[in-house]
Amino acid sequence: MRANDTLLDLFLELQILDRVPRSGYVLRGVAEPESVTEHSWHVLFLVWALGARSAGLDVTRAMEIALVHDLAELRIGDLPRVASRYFPAGAKKAAEAAAMAEVLAPLPERALGLYAEYQQGATPEARFVKACDKLQLMIKVLVYERWGTGALGEFWDNPENFPEGGPDGFPVVKELFEALRARRREG
Amino acid sequence: MRANDTLLDLFLELQILDRVPRSGYVLRGVAEPESVTEHSWHVLFLVWALGARSAGLDVTRAMEIALVHDLAELRIGDLPRVASRYFPAGAKKAAEAAAMAEVLAPLPERALGLYAEYQQGATPEARFVKACDKLQLMIKVLVYERWGTGALGEFWDNPENFPEGGPDGFPVVKELFEALRARRREG
Amino acid sequence: MRANDTLLDLFLELQILDRVPRSGYVLRGVAEPESVTEHSWHVLFLVWALGARSAGLDVTRAMEIALVHDLAELRIGDLPRVASRYFPAGAKKAAEAAAMAEVLAPLPERALGLYAEYQQGATPEARFVKACDKLQLMIKVLVYERWGTGALGEFWDNPENFPEGGPDGFPVVKELFEALRARRREG
Amino acid sequence: MRANDTLLDLFLELQILDRVPRSGYVLRGVAEPESVTEHSWHVLFLVWALGARSAGLDVTRAMEIALVHDLAELRIGDLPRVASRYFPAGAKKAAEAAAMAEVLAPLPERALGLYAEYQQGATPEARFVKACDKLQLMIKVLVYERWGTGALGEFWDNPENFPEGGPDGFPVVKELFEALRARRREG
Amino acid sequence: MRANDTLLDLFLELQILDRVPRSGYVLRGVAEPESVTEHSWHVLFLVWALGARSAGLDVTRAMEIALVHDLAELRIGDLPRVASRYFPAGAKKAAEAAAMAEVLAPLPERALGLYAEYQQGATPEARFVKACDKLQLMIKVLVYERWGTGALGEFWDNPENFPEGGPDGFPVVKELFEALRARRREG
Amino acid sequence: MRANDTLLDLFLELQILDRVPRSGYVLRGVAEPESVTEHSWHVLFLVWALGARSAGLDVTRAMEIALVHDLAELRIGDLPRVASRYFPAGAKKAAEAAAMAEVLAPLPERALGLYAEYQQGATPEARFVKACDKLQLMIKVLVYERWGTGALGEFWDNPENFPEGGPDGFPVVKELFEALRARRREG
Repeated sequence: MRANDTLLDLFLELQILDRVPRSGYVLRGVAEPESVTEHSWHVLFLVWALGARSAGLDVTRAMEIALVHDLAELRIGDLPRVASRYFPAGAKKAAEAAAMAEVLAPLPERALGLYAEYQQGATPEARFVKACDKLQLMIKVLVYERWGTGALGEFWDNPENFPEGGPDGFPVVKELFEALRARRREG
Repeated sequence: MRANDTLLDLFLELQILDRVPRSGYVLRGVAEPESVTEHSWHVLFLVWALGARSAGLDVTRAMEIALVHDLAELRIGDLPRVASRYFPAGAKKAAEAAAMAEVLAPLPERALGLYAEYQQGATPEARFVKACDKLQLMIKVLVYERWGTGALGEFWDNPENFPEGGPDGFPVVKELFEALRARRREG
Repeated sequence: MRANDTLLDLFLELQILDRVPRSGYVLRGVAEPESVTEHSWHVLFLVWALGARSAGLDVTRAMEIALVHDLAELRIGDLPRVASRYFPAGAKKAAEAAAMAEVLAPLPERALGLYAEYQQGATPEARFVKACDKLQLMIKVLVYERWGTGALGEFWDNPENFPEGGPDGFPVVKELFEALRARRREG
Repeated sequence: MRANDTLLDLFLELQILDRVPRSGYVLRGVAEPESVTEHSWHVLFLVWALGARSAGLDVTRAMEIALVHDLAELRIGDLPRVASRYFPAGAKKAAEAAAMAEVLAPLPERALGLYAEYQQGATPEARFVKACDKLQLMIKVLVYERWGTGALGEFWDNPENFPEGGPDGFPVVKELFEALRARRREG
Repeated sequence: MRANDTLLDLFLELQILDRVPRSGYVLRGVAEPESVTEHSWHVLFLVWALGARSAGLDVTRAMEIALVHDLAELRIGDLPRVASRYFPAGAKKAAEAAAMAEVLAPLPERALGLYAEYQQGATPEARFVKACDKLQLMIKVLVYERWGTGALGEFWDNPENFPEGGPDGFPVVKELFEALRARRREG
Repeated sequence: MRANDTLLDLFLELQILDRVPRSGYVLRGVAEPESVTEHSWHVLFLVWALGARSAGLDVTRAMEIALVHDLAELRIGDLPRVASRYFPAGAKKAAEAAAMAEVLAPLPERALGLYAEYQQGATPEARFVKACDKLQLMIKVLVYERWGTGALGEFWDNPENFPEGGPDGFPVVKELFEALRARRREG
């Protein structure tokens, strides 16, 4: 694969994202796990639905960030979280940025900027998408637990999966994480 | 299932959309076919990427329409196209609207309005999403043909699948359909 | 799809029923769920095995009813139970009847009559098949629970799933439901 | 597994047949191949639909034979055709009969008799089911070829797959095989 | 299928082993169960890793035995354990040997000898592979239990699955079985 | 995941390799593609069968190399080939080596040495395994093409996939590649 020559090349390549399963679930035995495309759609929906309740947020911009946030996985794959440990600091991010530059070649440069913004967590919008990325993760984990598939207990013990409102203090995100944990305790 | 009581109920239910395969592919033997969630993401991406090239379009609004356009399938399923023939005129649309009212209960009423707009094709934004919905269909069909899966030839012969620019004359959509057909002829 | 022109068209179309998963399981996260074809075979087997123990029943006729009872799903899909709520009363039944008229076109009219009989619950044979339809459902639910797949608890709380002998008082059906519940309590 | 103690044990065990794929397709690379349950249902449908057009046939009896004809695969599995070559003559048939005696223990002895009748091809009804068993095979093969899955060409060259009417001269079976080959030639 | 004429025929046929799922898991509802190829690789790895800790063992020879130990399943399928009960004593072993003679035709005769050695448990190396075959079974069972898939409890109650060191007294195998049971008790 | 504390931890983790599909096939639409475990087994078999015909090769050592050659994918995943382009030269190899040090922690240090030998292509045995790795790739590609799954034509045009005998001149490898191409031309 090369840089995409045309918009149609890009659209064709994007269809492949449906066949990239989320590695965190695969490695823990979830049957028929979520694809990267599916994850991306759910994050986008959260951003839209919760963004409207977060004062001062540019929701359209956050939606655009959500739309592109995982596209590097088309070229890099969905690396298991543990994989980062074995690469030099920053190598994975740099690889993703390089891959994105090729994937998004037929789009205006602004698209690539949105991706950089996400990677660097440079704006409240980027950080809001990151929080929704984790919220979607834990929502799916609860669904899989109800369905009886996968060994997913450790996700609940990892504080990185619960950014809550983070430094920006997004109250609606915090509320949702609390509701989610309550729902799990109820069984 | 009832009207969703809370945002969290809605988000939990939405995860199920990943398990609803697109019936048009299932009935034609495609292996591991696209889910409704995946289709929805790709349509949204097209709307975003092509909307910026379509003068006068409110792209944010079109993205929001794309986000909700297939959610009724959570409650109704993805009915085969032929199914409409056996219901009274308008029954399927009415059922979808009723289902959406329950699914989207925890969101502001505006969300339901976006859905009605799409169903009625009431605005250029709604019609643009409909065109992108078909464009995504035919992009995926070409990908499946390249992968050797499914008996999909009849899709190319159905004029309903090629809205081109439609009455609004969206040139970028028309160009993409042409490029797609050219790509198929090349093999 | 049109009315089937020939018997061979009908037989070819019927193969597709293997790719239609039962929506009740799909929506509750069962991995690799039963197809409509598989469900139909098991219902037929129950009708045959239990019919012989039900005095006064025309077992051959009941088997024929079981054979056709779910074929409309070829054209309509397997609508989630909740879907009925959103259609006008009787619309789903009417759609199924209309679809069946086309599907069964190459068979003698008697076949369509068997389907109507089932839909209306017009005879003890039709009601016996309906009871076996639910019995098969709950047998499969127990099997899936043993296999650890799906969130299926609510099925046990829904009285519609336990027609027992119904107004006809089929004692063998009643006994089987009791045995099934006992087996579940034993774990 | 032992002899089934009760009818419920039998019904529970039968559900497993849905997870036994037809080995002929597995070994030739068909994606998501037919289960033994699915095959059995389609054979039964053929017997019912074509039996009514075959003068002098006891269709009910033929349907019962079709219902039990493949149940031994619950205990033996669906052995690849080539496997028979490596067992002493008659060993596979004897094994199937012994397995069936245990599987069908809770049913009246008549059920086991139907199975013996099929194995020995002792009656026109048994031979009719065998012919429909092959007809279903070739119908599915054509469907898979249209779907682009599996390397199935050799099935069309094996005369054992085309019993036509056989010694009993079932004209409707012969006609269907001819129609099927014609359909394949048309592409 | 015939005896393989050339090495390439053999290598092509072996690829099919990936599509033969282990029947013990299929029959107990494991989702996406291990293939025979996967099982074979894990047994080989155990033999290599544990063989080095077993004094006096010819590890290379044991690895070679592990490599061929399940290849007959290409032609015979992976018969459910219960199937043996229905065949004459020794028929299954004889069938496997006959199948192997054809499968391995393009390899030096020595290969077939390794298989006979395994079947007869004629050497410490053959018995070591048999012990590792069971150890791999129970490791996978524990993994599946953690993943929540399949009804596998009975495997832990079957003494045949725990050969421990057997008559040869392989202490490292015994230790692993103990560690495995301890890990399961910990949950 | 950390360094494995015990042999049992290692064996448990290795089972996950069955759920890591080979990314080259996933990205080209192969249905139900080969797992890394399956690939590894086939490479090992080739090394064993062809190694015996390659004068001067230490076949046992080559088998050991084949056994460990892809284990880093447990921690890194099976990166698409194109991914390497986006990392600094050598970063992927270094990451794999670091991951392997943790995965193989409970084994004697010799195991890690075998892996380094493979990565560096330091010995004829390592280079022989690399040639067999490609040979297995192209054998599987031919099998998938026969099965009608995936868009795999470009594999035949990539000279990297045909190391033939390489600098060591392994004639048996060269012969097999030739036989494979001839087989494909025959169709």
